[in-house]
Amino acid sequence: MASDLPHIVIVGGGFGGLSVAQALKKAPVRVTLIDRRNHHLFQPLLYQVASGGLSPANIAAPLRSVLRKHQNVKVLLDEVRDIDLAGRRVLLAERDMTYDTLVVAAGVTHQYFGHPEWEALAPGLKTIEDATEMRRRILLAFERAEFETDPAQRDALLTFVVVGGGPTGVELAGVIGELAHYTMRNDFRNIDTRSARVLLLEGSPHILAAFPPALSEQAVKQLASLGVTVRTHAHVSDVQADGVTVKMGEQSEHIPTRTVLWAAGVAASPLGALLAKAVNVQPDRCGRVPVEPDLTLPGHPEVFVIGDLANFSHQGGKPLPGVAPTAMQQGGYVARLIQSRLQGQASPAPFEYKDYGAMATIGRGRAVALLGGRSFKGYLAWLIWLFIHLMNIVHFENRVLVLIQWAWNYLTRNRSARLITGDADAREKQQE
Amino acid sequence: MASDLPHIVIVGGGFGGLSVAQALKKAPVRVTLIDRRNHHLFQPLLYQVASGGLSPANIAAPLRSVLRKHQNVKVLLDEVRDIDLAGRRVLLAERDMTYDTLVVAAGVTHQYFGHPEWEALAPGLKTIEDATEMRRRILLAFERAEFETDPAQRDALLTFVVVGGGPTGVELAGVIGELAHYTMRNDFRNIDTRSARVLLLEGSPHILAAFPPALSEQAVKQLASLGVTVRTHAHVSDVQADGVTVKMGEQSEHIPTRTVLWAAGVAASPLGALLAKAVNVQPDRCGRVPVEPDLTLPGHPEVFVIGDLANFSHQGGKPLPGVAPTAMQQGGYVARLIQSRLQGQASPAPFEYKDYGAMATIGRGRAVALLGGRSFKGYLAWLIWLFIHLMNIVHFENRVLVLIQWAWNYLTRNRSARLITGDADAREKQQE
Repeated sequence: MASDLPHIVIVGGGFGGLSVAQALKKAPVRVTLIDRRNHHLFQPLLYQVASGGLSPANIAAPLRSVLRKHQNVKVLLDEVRDIDLAGRRVLLAERDMTYDTLVVAAGVTHQYFGHPEWEALAPGLKTIEDATEMRRRILLAFERAEFETDPAQRDALLTFVVVGGGPTGVELAGVIGELAHYTMRNDFRNIDTRSARVLLLEGSPHILAAFPPALSEQAVKQLASLGVTVRTHAHVSDVQADGVTVKMGEQSEHIPTRTVLWAAGVAASPLGALLAKAVNVQPDRCGRVPVEPDLTLPGHPEVFVIGDLANFSHQGGKPLPGVAPTAMQQGGYVARLIQSRLQGQASPAPFEYKDYGAMATIGRGRAVALLGGRSFKGYLAWLIWLFIHLMNIVHFENRVLVLIQWAWNYLTRNRSARLITGDADAREKQQE
Repeated sequence: MASDLPHIVIVGGGFGGLSVAQALKKAPVRVTLIDRRNHHLFQPLLYQVASGGLSPANIAAPLRSVLRKHQNVKVLLDEVRDIDLAGRRVLLAERDMTYDTLVVAAGVTHQYFGHPEWEALAPGLKTIEDATEMRRRILLAFERAEFETDPAQRDALLTFVVVGGGPTGVELAGVIGELAHYTMRNDFRNIDTRSARVLLLEGSPHILAAFPPALSEQAVKQLASLGVTVRTHAHVSDVQADGVTVKMGEQSEHIPTRTVLWAAGVAASPLGALLAKAVNVQPDRCGRVPVEPDLTLPGHPEVFVIGDLANFSHQGGKPLPGVAPTAMQQGGYVARLIQSRLQGQASPAPFEYKDYGAMATIGRGRAVALLGGRSFKGYLAWLIWLFIHLMNIVHFENRVLVLIQWAWNYLTRNRSARLITGDADAREKQQE
């Protein structure tokens, strides 16, 4: 790999960044892909890890493995501290690096509406560690309920509150319902796991706001069949170790629970604010960077911002949804644009998002999907969901193993990855 | 389950404790199985997790799942603080509990020959967290070497020292050799992973001391073919962040390395010392409890000590090996003895260990085995090893999935579970 080739630096190995690197396979460029983690994560299935259905390695693949045959790509495990747009340099924790073209695809993390102190009480779901932490909390609650003699405490232990009625919240609530009603039904001697309460709290009038109201209603029904109660217009006003306080209109209610899971707001990586400030534009409410129609940073045609970190509002006036297809389509577009420039061709037309639809799974054989304007629900929706997700898992081996694991889970409602792991002292700490 | 049935309390859900619980399936008893963890762990395959070949859930099964159909067993996630032999009570972190019969199978942990400060620098391999920590360190060393410009530092990063030449040490060293020579060979751009040095240090004259010298020699050769150098008569006298100091006879050598893995001594659970003191016997050098020929605690026929925690020296004068078959055979014996007593029958003959042999695997198609006095090596030994281990994995699903995962790894030399997980700040911390 000649060192005089143009140097493309990609920040982030998620769906967006990885798509750029892969699509540049045959381009005469040097690519450096920087990520804090050594793996690409298939985030849409993270809730399966949180519920013990899949192992982390089933939905994550080492970036080096995925890019093994891409001889023009170097993978670098490091963290970006700052970006020097004038000097075309990224400043990393352990080194600095110059670029000719920069692609920033650093994604989002959870946010707690100005209450960062809630994070320790109500973990979100963005990383493998988040997922194993959720798994630990969910399983420990049942373990502790089994030997709890105080009925009020037992009820609190068997109450699970999921905050946020988007796809992640719906999927999490559904899968906890399944654990309680099917998977673990025969595992305990003192408690009936089917008595567990799962509450899904949503601030707006509908869960799954991106779907038509009829599908949202359908999701509520399917959730109910798994013992999940949906509460809309419900705003969380406080999270404590022993419960959550929920405001519904004028009324306020304390719900005793020991397990609160966060699937509500997201905030862009701090790199968003940093870039926006450097070019004097205002980041949006979530900290995302408004980008040009060709996904470049205003005034910097050599810098692209894609995926969850970008606010692309040139199509219909609303930002594009923060989902994998958006990031992947943007990644492919940027790779094509880079190649056009190298060949001295005119730039391609502005980026255009193709909306193939949306879907959310609720449990075994339960889902809702909106594809090409058509609504699907129940078993058929679930099969579509399964097929599309399997086809999209990046790494071939993972796809096969996930298929086998799911086939097994489907036949047996088993969830064999129900391991409580993590800090050996964490159990004690949590109880204090 | 009538509450007037005799109450059998089992401490520890490893091979020993689980065998007792399973063998009492149809006995008219109440069984409580206590473990700090919610899962049974197939420890002999832990090194496969440490090297990214298997996921934790492939070799661990929730105890509740394993014992789901054992209606007379309650599983309790808790930790034993003390045992009151006179009052027949176990004192747990969160409650107390009386027993009629107690089985203590609390196992062993690593020990550092009086240097507990080495633990942070040289992790051992007993739990899932240990294995994912080892995996993190091994993979991070390669990641950092890829971008290290100082040749001496790079060499230190590409030097892996395994302390202890028993089966675990041999397996670990072999599997790191395989990672470097095969699996990750094409993953890096700046370093040749095949230049990695793997050192296996053993204090005694031979690795795999339980095997005949010819098989031990064979293991050294097979390790060499994976780039592993074995040093015998090598005593570790110090472990630092930047290397280990090794004494060989009069000579002392500093080996620069950033990755030291501990597979040397074991120490019994503190419950061993506690029980020994209570009955005024001397625990052995490793803290194990000398037991009677029927595996009872001296003077306490209602208390059994089995597995790694027991020193059973009534057969040949030497303690039995600390391996899964010992624990499982002892568990079965104790269950039979408990049932004989319930039926008012004479106690069975003293426990007798049946030694079916020993084996250690070194890499794909590489192993040594001693079965019924016959020696096997290489491919045949490996097939035997594979077959026996698969047949013994407790949980049926895991057996199938592990078989598939191994078949895949075998065909591709892939290790898809090469994830660096854990404390997000740990990477920074380790580098300080």
